Amino acid sequence: MQYIVQKFGGTSVGTIERIDNVAKIINSEVNNSKKVIAIVSAMSGETNRLEELVKNTSPIYDGREYDVIVSTGENVTAGLLALKLQNLGVPARSWVSWQIPITTTDMHSNARILDIDSKNINKKFDEGMKVAVVAGFQGVSNEKRITTLGRGGSDTSAVALAAVFGAERCDIFTDVEGIFTTDPRIVNGAKKLDRIAYEEMLELSSLGAKVLHTRSVELAMRYNVQLQVLSSFKEKKGTIVCREDEMLESRIISGIACSKDEAKITLVGVRDKPGVAAAIFGPLSESGINVDMIIQNVSENETTDITFSCPQSEVIRAEKAIKAASGKKQISYKNYIIDTHVAKVSIVGIGMRSHTGIAKKMFEALATENINILVISTSEIKISILLEQKYMELAVQILHDAFELAKL
Amino acid sequence: MQYIVQKFGGTSVGTIERIDNVAKIINSEVNNSKKVIAIVSAMSGETNRLEELVKNTSPIYDGREYDVIVSTGENVTAGLLALKLQNLGVPARSWVSWQIPITTTDMHSNARILDIDSKNINKKFDEGMKVAVVAGFQGVSNEKRITTLGRGGSDTSAVALAAVFGAERCDIFTDVEGIFTTDPRIVNGAKKLDRIAYEEMLELSSLGAKVLHTRSVELAMRYNVQLQVLSSFKEKKGTIVCREDEMLESRIISGIACSKDEAKITLVGVRDKPGVAAAIFGPLSESGINVDMIIQNVSENETTDITFSCPQSEVIRAEKAIKAASGKKQISYKNYIIDTHVAKVSIVGIGMRSHTGIAKKMFEALATENINILVISTSEIKISILLEQKYMELAVQILHDAFELAKL
Repeated sequence: MQYIVQKFGGTSVGTIERIDNVAKIINSEVNNSKKVIAIVSAMSGETNRLEELVKNTSPIYDGREYDVIVSTGENVTAGLLALKLQNLGVPARSWVSWQIPITTTDMHSNARILDIDSKNINKKFDEGMKVAVVAGFQGVSNEKRITTLGRGGSDTSAVALAAVFGAERCDIFTDVEGIFTTDPRIVNGAKKLDRIAYEEMLELSSLGAKVLHTRSVELAMRYNVQLQVLSSFKEKKGTIVCREDEMLESRIISGIACSKDEAKITLVGVRDKPGVAAAIFGPLSESGINVDMIIQNVSENETTDITFSCPQSEVIRAEKAIKAASGKKQISYKNYIIDTHVAKVSIVGIGMRSHTGIAKKMFEALATENINILVISTSEIKISILLEQKYMELAVQILHDAFELAKL
Repeated sequence: MQYIVQKFGGTSVGTIERIDNVAKIINSEVNNSKKVIAIVSAMSGETNRLEELVKNTSPIYDGREYDVIVSTGENVTAGLLALKLQNLGVPARSWVSWQIPITTTDMHSNARILDIDSKNINKKFDEGMKVAVVAGFQGVSNEKRITTLGRGGSDTSAVALAAVFGAERCDIFTDVEGIFTTDPRIVNGAKKLDRIAYEEMLELSSLGAKVLHTRSVELAMRYNVQLQVLSSFKEKKGTIVCREDEMLESRIISGIACSKDEAKITLVGVRDKPGVAAAIFGPLSESGINVDMIIQNVSENETTDITFSCPQSEVIRAEKAIKAASGKKQISYKNYIIDTHVAKVSIVGIGMRSHTGIAKKMFEALATENINILVISTSEIKISILLEQKYMELAVQILHDAFELAKL
């Protein structure tokens, strides 16, 4: 008998009625003689409510206590879904992480899964259980403390369980119908993709597409877990995330991602000499700043400007780190400029590897509308640009047209 | 260094501000160089909210899933209080039941504590932890499933921890100032008791005084844990629950309890022969009905009437059990009468053992106001009567005066 892993996000289990619907989706797999491992998120709004409680309780942040508190939302959904399934006559029970156990690192609130033991769950399958309802997003450290995997971490719980159990399929149920060429709220003609390669999905998730937790895609790629992203509200095929060689059609660009959670910081008048970049980005990295794009102007005299981008939420910390480091000789600078009115737009596609002229086509399309590019960064399968925030939607539309994504 | 156990009920931790207040109460014990074990309930309203979710999810009741869901409220409070304590500079951490562990029976939603391991908590005390914040109300079964101890069960968690750690004191913080001679909402002159004996408290809890979980008093008595019931909102001595020989003053009656959660069921025309009571109360007991008072009328011919009382919430089940059993010859009856407009009033005092005439005094006092007594039951230290519900408050007032409890 085959295992199926199905993950249901917060909106999919947002009300008792929706949990009922989820139970029916699972039941149809049970009727196909599958052993189902269902991973659930907290009911929508619950994690935010719990985070708010934490925030209002103390300015001191202790990830260990945060995890104890915030992980309770998933426990509640797991219990409720198990009850709904029992109500349909399906032998089901809830599993919280320490009961399996799912062992993680002790990096609280952002832990990584180290190991999943399949023994306890399999024993219950052998005894007649048909569905294991697993509370997502959480684990337990070697210190026997509760951990969480970061917001969206239930996707990662699902993929890891699919890998360990060798599941036939890993369905990620959410409130959208699949992965689109771009955000349909921005581009009317955005098209749902039938398939997308792991590498592309990984870039899109990292670049602001919120459908899948980035680490879940990494994990799926590493263990070759075929994912399907689909809606729990409509009976419709979703998007399959798979190996490049399992793609049916070839295309150059698969999707366009965009994000307003960007800030641009420029250090003006930095001394231009070897080691200066390390001197700047060392302290930033130590402060946990996710520096994304970096450019250094051509030096005209002894000094230069260095510009980098990071998430808006990290600007205050970044500023602090820069100021603290400025005392040291090597990274003296005249002043710094912070611009939070920027956005990032990225085009992603594995076809870039074998096609040239993509960047040119991108820049030309933007130039026709006089959109100024502030920073550029590229990888093998993506090109990202930073631009003024007010042009973000326009840029996405132009690029969606230019690469004819509506025709995919 | 001595251990202190402090338990904080739902209203005491009902808001972030109140949790702050609780942290300060605990901190003053830490400043006295005590090791504190703090047991917390869910924030007021939270357990009801979770129970409501369970009720709305499924008509099928599975205590195992109920416990997974409902126990989360205590986990949240434990984490929040640990954060508040850290904020005051107190090294504190939360403990959920499986981390300690607190092992219980597998009677889900009404489990009993089998064992508490002090090793893990003590190890952390040795490493510098000053406060162990323990999620109350819950445990873990030998099957490694989460259990709960029944509503009010955090009191029992506290007493059990106090027993295991040999705590110097076990303070039960609540929203009232202590144990009163009777409900102050009914009798203006109700007086707070300085001390009360375990046996008296046990009777009062069983009889409807909601201040302490009945099992917590049993446990305190068995392990000789001195309890103090006091308010978390006022800095005032509470009521000490202790051994009879630790009572400073002697008195005959300590308190009057009353409860409207009573129903009276009369089986009319029951065949009067040996074994008939067993035949009736056997099936009721198997259905989990808590039969309280029982009277059997003197038989005038071959049949008799049997009357018993039980909590109102159990009437439907009791009726079902009676009907199901009526097919069997031995408990044939003509008909049955259910009366839910009754109440129970009880006087309790260890002095009854050595004083006579208490019952006479009680009945005479009620007779002067023409209050009719429906059923009587007694134990060594209490006399309970069932009466028409509308007279309950009046009866309590009369008895409070008759036994001069305001002068205690």
